[in-house]
Amino acid sequence: MSAEEFRRQGHAVIDWIADYFARIESFPVLSRVRPGEIRSQLPQSAPRAGEAFEQILGDIERVILPGITHWQSPNFYAYFPANASGPAILGDLLSSGLGVQGMLWSTSPACTELETQVLDWLVPMLGLPEHFLSSSTGGGVIQDSASSAALCALLAGRERATQFHSNRHGCDGKLVAYCSTQTHSSVEKAAKVAGIGALNLRQIEVDANFAMRPEALERQIAVDRKAGMIPCFVCATVGTTSSNAIDPVREIARICREQDLWLHVDAAMCGTAALCPEFRFLHDGVESADSYCFNPHKWMFTNFDCDCFYVADRKHLIRTLSVLPEYLRNQATLSGAVIDYRDWQIPLGRRFRSLKLWFVIRHYGIEGLQHHLREHVRLAQEFAGWVRNDARFELAAPAPLNLVCFRLRHGDGANQKLMEALNSSGDLYLTHTKLDGKLTLRMCIGQTNTEARHVQEAWRRVLEETARLTA
Amino acid sequence: MSAEEFRRQGHAVIDWIADYFARIESFPVLSRVRPGEIRSQLPQSAPRAGEAFEQILGDIERVILPGITHWQSPNFYAYFPANASGPAILGDLLSSGLGVQGMLWSTSPACTELETQVLDWLVPMLGLPEHFLSSSTGGGVIQDSASSAALCALLAGRERATQFHSNRHGCDGKLVAYCSTQTHSSVEKAAKVAGIGALNLRQIEVDANFAMRPEALERQIAVDRKAGMIPCFVCATVGTTSSNAIDPVREIARICREQDLWLHVDAAMCGTAALCPEFRFLHDGVESADSYCFNPHKWMFTNFDCDCFYVADRKHLIRTLSVLPEYLRNQATLSGAVIDYRDWQIPLGRRFRSLKLWFVIRHYGIEGLQHHLREHVRLAQEFAGWVRNDARFELAAPAPLNLVCFRLRHGDGANQKLMEALNSSGDLYLTHTKLDGKLTLRMCIGQTNTEARHVQEAWRRVLEETARLTA
Repeated sequence: MSAEEFRRQGHAVIDWIADYFARIESFPVLSRVRPGEIRSQLPQSAPRAGEAFEQILGDIERVILPGITHWQSPNFYAYFPANASGPAILGDLLSSGLGVQGMLWSTSPACTELETQVLDWLVPMLGLPEHFLSSSTGGGVIQDSASSAALCALLAGRERATQFHSNRHGCDGKLVAYCSTQTHSSVEKAAKVAGIGALNLRQIEVDANFAMRPEALERQIAVDRKAGMIPCFVCATVGTTSSNAIDPVREIARICREQDLWLHVDAAMCGTAALCPEFRFLHDGVESADSYCFNPHKWMFTNFDCDCFYVADRKHLIRTLSVLPEYLRNQATLSGAVIDYRDWQIPLGRRFRSLKLWFVIRHYGIEGLQHHLREHVRLAQEFAGWVRNDARFELAAPAPLNLVCFRLRHGDGANQKLMEALNSSGDLYLTHTKLDGKLTLRMCIGQTNTEARHVQEAWRRVLEETARLTA
Repeated sequence: MSAEEFRRQGHAVIDWIADYFARIESFPVLSRVRPGEIRSQLPQSAPRAGEAFEQILGDIERVILPGITHWQSPNFYAYFPANASGPAILGDLLSSGLGVQGMLWSTSPACTELETQVLDWLVPMLGLPEHFLSSSTGGGVIQDSASSAALCALLAGRERATQFHSNRHGCDGKLVAYCSTQTHSSVEKAAKVAGIGALNLRQIEVDANFAMRPEALERQIAVDRKAGMIPCFVCATVGTTSSNAIDPVREIARICREQDLWLHVDAAMCGTAALCPEFRFLHDGVESADSYCFNPHKWMFTNFDCDCFYVADRKHLIRTLSVLPEYLRNQATLSGAVIDYRDWQIPLGRRFRSLKLWFVIRHYGIEGLQHHLREHVRLAQEFAGWVRNDARFELAAPAPLNLVCFRLRHGDGANQKLMEALNSSGDLYLTHTKLDGKLTLRMCIGQTNTEARHVQEAWRRVLEETARLTA
């Protein structure tokens, strides 16, 4: 593709995206295609000769769009927001254009140093402890997801507990890790991957607000030690996926310090809220954690993938994940004066992901980010108030931030029907969970362009469908 | 950022990239900054108020560019090519703009179905076996890197060998995996991550061409079985990182079938060459492998990250990596009629990466891709010929494709000096390895815009610096 062609087609793609955002509310939020419908419109085999770019771009409109569930719609309230923004998209575009590999400092120093600096910026922005700074004993790194961050944390905990024996000899079936019954499934997956085993991940019971019971954790650790097992890792969550429950990190951290267990704090969606001082209660106790992560690709206007993972003491992480074959040796690495992020993650290769994060922080500024987060929380609180004031509904859990878990007091069947009616209408999209064994709808507010009018309309539609259901 | 502002700034970023490619040869290929130099030009903390986009983009030029090692330069011959192209950059831009999550089919059906279709396209394109097709027992998925593909393959092998016992109970120190002394370090890392342990990864000796000795593999498996260990996995490489050595996959596959071991074939860089029938000897024996990967983000004009990972029987992989918490349950998943790629990888979240791959294949067409690959191989063979015909040099390994391993016959010191002189000149960038214990330079040809004149100039510079060194 010539420079001239790239310029022309690049402008066309930018325009397509701008137009897409302008008309995004005209699409049903949840795609309506049936399994196989998109594939059936694609050729059976690749073209022998190249095709014109106009034709390719035209197929986005014709073939791809009907199969898109519109995560960037202001009417998207499902799962978690994966909110993007103009500066993020353009920062990521520059990353694609530069096309550098950041596996080592020397393979593109700016890729490593910008990442270190921006992750250091975020430490005071979120009220995180100073030892998470790269200038202290710790440091931050961008992972693809909170799943990978949890895996890296679990591995570092595993290695610290075995004095790096399991890296050399493998696991021996005696390691135990802990989370709660509400912890994200990625921790169970990490326990499988790391050779610890799902049955050796103890899912500690939770209290009435779905937060981990520290006394139950302490009891279980004692039971395991008595049985000759080796406790190595605890995952606490600040804002669980199901209900936004906040585990008591300070109390859990005390236990972990006493028992010498690695404490990882997963704040994937909610950590971003700590940009606002009034929500910084979220991070109470995090100063005693060994690692922490939050995802700008969830609620901080930065397109996937961008999970910020911090450790209090980088040497355990690096020793756990380090490899140095001859073909990666270089003076800068051997000097010890640089960070090689390949030793902070599972894969070797890495993209210049800090560019988009840098663009977002600079475009919005701290105050701009705070403004949008406060508005999202305010809208969610308003929605929770409407639920509270309608006798047909109940809140299924406290709503401390931007997630409202609610349900009709008419049983699972009614709630399932309500959700299906709302989602199939295309007007909005929300998903469910189970709390106390009951089907519960999750209204998660955090899309970049969600405004009061969207949330009001969502509630109006909930009421409308409820009236139809209960008629 | 308003739609109008996005349009204007988006055009500016596209133009910046087009201009960057036009002047890329004017920069020293290897960045010349010292550790800390980029960071020292960045503010100590994030701005309170938002900044103008012009200012942010201006800093790319002023602050970031000096710290870039130009992987997209036609004079980049280091490590492996990470070649990008216009259609890849624009496909990825669309992925950022759509901002969808492809963790489940239902979270954006087009994201899953396009990926399945494009990965099916590649099966006949590369002469891969039909059971790698999604319509058969297998299927393909895009991973971030060959490291992650190797980890997933190792986990599936681990689980198959233990009848899924280790996923539940953890590893027990008895599992053994195999690779060669020349296998990429990611397999050692995977063995650590998976709880198998680096000491339980047997690095089998290689022949004079740095390819695994199957008889040595067979012998080691017998020794391990006798010792009560449980062999579970072999990684064969088609084009090793150090020297492009090609392990005898057919013979290794026979042993794996007899011993019931999972065979993974890593063709990260070289697999792309199989687009040309004359290089398809690479895939001899792959029809008996359990899994296979190659990286379009290395040599197929698709920007990072894009590793294509295939399995012969998807049920083992899915059972190994599957999780299904309540909040991810949905009708499509429960119907069994769709693929949920979250069960084919470590992380949960995933980007719409097949867009860029689709764009590349359609833009170039099969014939266009073949044309460029043949040219890269032709240029490498020409370079190898020059080395062969100059008595001061020797080829350190066969050069079957696009990588030429060569050295001066004057010892490690001279080769180190030659490499440093070339790289510090900024005219080109190449890296080293050790083969037979000797420092060896690696000339890897595969950048999108590398032409005969660049390779000729590279050789002229090698001769020039050699003359200076040996004067």
